Amino acid sequence: MFDLRPVVYVIGLVVAVLGVTMLLPMMVDLFFGRPDWTVFLQSAIITVTFGAAMSIATANGVGGGLSVQQTFLLTTLIWVALPLFGALPFIFGEIQARPVDAIFEAMSGLTTTGSTVFSGLDAMPEGLLVWRSMLQWFGGIGIIVVAMVFLPELRVGGMQIFRSEAFDTMGKVLPRAAEIAGRITWIYLALTILNVLAYLLVGMTPFDAINHAFTTMSTGGFSTHDASFGVYQGAPEYVAAVFMILASLPFVRYIQLVAGTAQPLFRDSQIRAYLGTILVITLVMTIYRLVANGDHFEHGFREGVFNVTSIMSGTGYASVDYQLWGTFPIVAFFFLGLIGGCAGSTACSVKIFRYQILIAAIRARIMQILAPHGVFTPRFEGRPISEAVLSSVMAFFVMFVVSLGILAVLLSMTGLDMVTSLSGAATAIANIGPGLGDTIGPSGNFATLNDTAKWLLTAAMLVGRLELLSVYVLFTMRFWRG
Amino acid sequence: MFDLRPVVYVIGLVVAVLGVTMLLPMMVDLFFGRPDWTVFLQSAIITVTFGAAMSIATANGVGGGLSVQQTFLLTTLIWVALPLFGALPFIFGEIQARPVDAIFEAMSGLTTTGSTVFSGLDAMPEGLLVWRSMLQWFGGIGIIVVAMVFLPELRVGGMQIFRSEAFDTMGKVLPRAAEIAGRITWIYLALTILNVLAYLLVGMTPFDAINHAFTTMSTGGFSTHDASFGVYQGAPEYVAAVFMILASLPFVRYIQLVAGTAQPLFRDSQIRAYLGTILVITLVMTIYRLVANGDHFEHGFREGVFNVTSIMSGTGYASVDYQLWGTFPIVAFFFLGLIGGCAGSTACSVKIFRYQILIAAIRARIMQILAPHGVFTPRFEGRPISEAVLSSVMAFFVMFVVSLGILAVLLSMTGLDMVTSLSGAATAIANIGPGLGDTIGPSGNFATLNDTAKWLLTAAMLVGRLELLSVYVLFTMRFWRG
Ligand SMILES: [K+]
Ligand SMILES: [K+]
Repeated sequence: MFDLRPVVYVIGLVVAVLGVTMLLPMMVDLFFGRPDWTVFLQSAIITVTFGAAMSIATANGVGGGLSVQQTFLLTTLIWVALPLFGALPFIFGEIQARPVDAIFEAMSGLTTTGSTVFSGLDAMPEGLLVWRSMLQWFGGIGIIVVAMVFLPELRVGGMQIFRSEAFDTMGKVLPRAAEIAGRITWIYLALTILNVLAYLLVGMTPFDAINHAFTTMSTGGFSTHDASFGVYQGAPEYVAAVFMILASLPFVRYIQLVAGTAQPLFRDSQIRAYLGTILVITLVMTIYRLVANGDHFEHGFREGVFNVTSIMSGTGYASVDYQLWGTFPIVAFFFLGLIGGCAGSTACSVKIFRYQILIAAIRARIMQILAPHGVFTPRFEGRPISEAVLSSVMAFFVMFVVSLGILAVLLSMTGLDMVTSLSGAATAIANIGPGLGDTIGPSGNFATLNDTAKWLLTAAMLVGRLELLSVYVLFTMRFWRG
Repeated sequence: MFDLRPVVYVIGLVVAVLGVTMLLPMMVDLFFGRPDWTVFLQSAIITVTFGAAMSIATANGVGGGLSVQQTFLLTTLIWVALPLFGALPFIFGEIQARPVDAIFEAMSGLTTTGSTVFSGLDAMPEGLLVWRSMLQWFGGIGIIVVAMVFLPELRVGGMQIFRSEAFDTMGKVLPRAAEIAGRITWIYLALTILNVLAYLLVGMTPFDAINHAFTTMSTGGFSTHDASFGVYQGAPEYVAAVFMILASLPFVRYIQLVAGTAQPLFRDSQIRAYLGTILVITLVMTIYRLVANGDHFEHGFREGVFNVTSIMSGTGYASVDYQLWGTFPIVAFFFLGLIGGCAGSTACSVKIFRYQILIAAIRARIMQILAPHGVFTPRFEGRPISEAVLSSVMAFFVMFVVSLGILAVLLSMTGLDMVTSLSGAATAIANIGPGLGDTIGPSGNFATLNDTAKWLLTAAMLVGRLELLSVYVLFTMRFWRG
C-alpha cells in the first residue's frame, strides 16, 4: 500500500480553496439582501476547517512527485471530495436540499454535467444560483487541467497523443500542472469576461450574463431559469452558440494563439471535424424542420445551431423542448451527445478525436484486408497513431458503451422507463445535462427520480468526467498492490 | 476491375439449388390440399431458369480459386440474390405480399433474423410456412460456412482467430468450403432431427415440430403461430432453450466431438462464458420476477431461461410479452441482444468471444498504465491475441455501435419513435427478430412500418449477418481498384 499522505494533502488544499470561494456567493447574497448569506459563511468555515485539517495532518508526508497510483487516486478523490463540500450550501440554504439531492447537484456542477434536481430557480436566492454557476466554472477549469496534464501523463483514453504537444519537457506532474493551470486560467477568465460582455450586449441582465458565462465557458449548462435558455431566444442563442464552441475547442490552441501562432488553431483536424459536424447536422436539422414543421429558415437555423451546439459541446442548455420537433430530433440528439467536443477543452463525452482515430484505424484495417501483404498505418494529423494510443482509444470506446449499457440496465431496475434509463445513462456518463422523455427531457428535471437512480447518476457523472479508466483503475487488485 | 464471371457462376448455381428446394413446400401444399402448390412450381421454374442462365453465361470464366475481392463480392451477392428469389412465393402466393414485404420476409429468413411482416400465420397455407422455416434453415447452414471459412480467410471482425483451428491446411477457399459444408451439414441435419423428435416428445404437432426445429437450429425464430412460442408454454420451452443453446455453440466442437474428442467442447472458453452469462442473467431475471411480479420459481425460471436464451442466442422466439414484466426486463433484453452467441454457429450479434477479447485487451491496458515499463499481452484461450485480431475485433465493435446509431437515426427520420428506432436498429443488425415497444415488440409485428423503414431494416439484416465489414468493404474505392 502506497503513501496516501501526499494525496490527502493536495485534496485538503483544494478543499480549503473551495471553502474560501464560498465567500463570493456570500457577498452576492449580502448584496441582494438575502438572509441566505449566513449559509455560505457556515459552509465556508466548515469546508476550510476540514480542508486545512487534512493538509496539516498530512504535511509531513509531502515531498517529491506523485507516483502513478497517487496521481490516479488524487484525480478521482478530488472529484469525490469537492462535491461533498460543495453540496453544503444546498443543504444549509433556503432550499434545504436532502443530502442526495445536494450531492447530485454539486457533482452535476463540478463535472459540468448540468442535470438539475432543483426547480423554482427563478425565485432561488442569488447566492445559491451563483454557487451553482461557480461549481461549473471551477469544474471546467479543473477538467482542462486534468485533460491536459494528468490524463496524458497517465495514458488514459488515448490522451497521451496530446502529451508533448504544447510542452516539450516531461517534468513532474505537479509543477507542470501549476504552470499549465496558470496559463489556462488566464485564457479561461478572459474568454469568460468576453462572454459576459457579449451576453450583456444582446440584452441579458448583468446577473444572468455572469451566471450564464460561467456555465457556457465550462460547457456546464446550469441556468438561472427553470426554462433554461428559453427566456433568451433570439440573439443570445447565437452568442451562446459561439461561446459554447469556443469552450469546446482545445485550449492549447489558445495558449499558442496568445504566444503569437494562429496556424495550429486553423490547421487542427479535431477543430475542423468538430465544426464540420456541427454545421452539417445543423443544416440537416434546419432542413428537416423546414419540411416537417413548416418552420422558417432563420428560426429553424437559430434553434438548430443553438441546440445542436449545446448537445455536441455537452453544454446542455435548451432553448425549446426539441422533443416536440418530431421523432428524428429526439433520436439524433441522443446520438449527438455521444460525439462530444474536442479533447483538452471543457467538453466531454467520447470526443471527436477518438472518432477520427477509430475511423483511421478502420480504414487501415480495410486496406489491410484488401491487400494482406501491404503495410498500412493509421494516422492522426499526419502522424502515425501508435499501437498504445489506438488500443487506449478503443478501450475507452468499449468501456464507454458497455458502461452506458450497464448503467441503463441498473437504472431500469430502479423502475425508470427505457427512454429515461438510456438517455439518463448517456447524459450522465457524457456529462451533457438533459436526457430525453417526459421526466428528464429538456423541459424536465431530475428531481422526481428515486434516490438509487440519483446515486447511480452521481457516480456516473464522476466516472464519465474522468474518462472512465481513471476511476475504474482504482477497482483493480493490481492498483492497490503496486 | 476484376473478373465477375466466377462470382456470377457460383451465385447462379446456388440460386438454382434454391429453386429446386421450392419443390419441397410445393409437396407440402399438395399434401395439405392447398391450391397454393402451383405458386411454388412457378417460383421454382423462374428461379432455376434464372440461376441456370447465370451459370451457363459465365461458365467460360471459371477456373482456379477466387481472389479476396471476388470472395467478398460473392459472400454479399449471395445474400442479396437469394432473398430476391426466395421472396417470389410470398408475392405469387395466397397472401400476395407486396415486393417490399416479400423481400423483407425472405431477407429476415435467410439472415436468420426472424422479424416478420406477416400476420395470420395460423391460417397461412402450410407451404408458405414451411418455406419461411426452410429459408431460415438454409440461412443458418449458410452462415456457419461463411463464419467458418470465408470470414476467417478474409480476416473480418477478428474471425481469423479461428482460422486454423479445425483445418490445418490452407487450401483454396472453395474446396475447403465444400469439405466443411459437407461435415457441418450432417451435424446440422442430425441436430435438427433430434430437435424434431424432442419437440414431438413434448407434445408439438409434427408440422410444428419440423418447422420449429428448422427455425430453432438456425437461431432464426420464425414461428407458425402469431403468438410465436406462446402456444407451447411448459416443457417445449425447456426443449427449445436446450436446442437454441446447441445451435449457438461453435460447430467446430461438434465436428471434433464426432471425431472422438470431447475435450475441446468442455474446455472452450467461449462456451463457458456464454453459458455462464445465460445462467447468471436467467437467475437475476428469475429473482427479479419473484420479487417484482410475485411469480413462483418454476414459472419465472422457465420463462426466464427461455426468453433470455432466445434473445442471447439471437433466435427471437417469444413465449410471453416480456415487456409486461417491468422496466428492467425491457432494457435488459435490449442489451442482451447485443451480446450474442458463439462464433462459428448460427448465432449473430457482437458474439461472446469479441467481448472476451475486448476485456482481455482492456485488462492489459490497465496493467500497462499501472506499470508503464512492463509488457502485458492480452490472451484468448491462453494464446496471445495478435494485434491484427485485436484491431479487427475493435473495428467490428466500433462499426457495430456506430452502424446501430446511424440506422436508428435514419429510422427515426421515417417517423418511428425512439424505442422502435433504437430496438429496430438493434434487432436488425444483430439479427435477433423482435424489437421493443408496441409496434415491433415481442407481441407486435413489422407489418405496419413504412416502406423506407422496411428497406433500411432489410439492408441492415444483410449487413449485420455478414459482420458489417464484408459489406462495407464493397463501398470503398480501393475494393474496385484492386
Ligand atoms: K453539460
Ligand atoms: K433470429
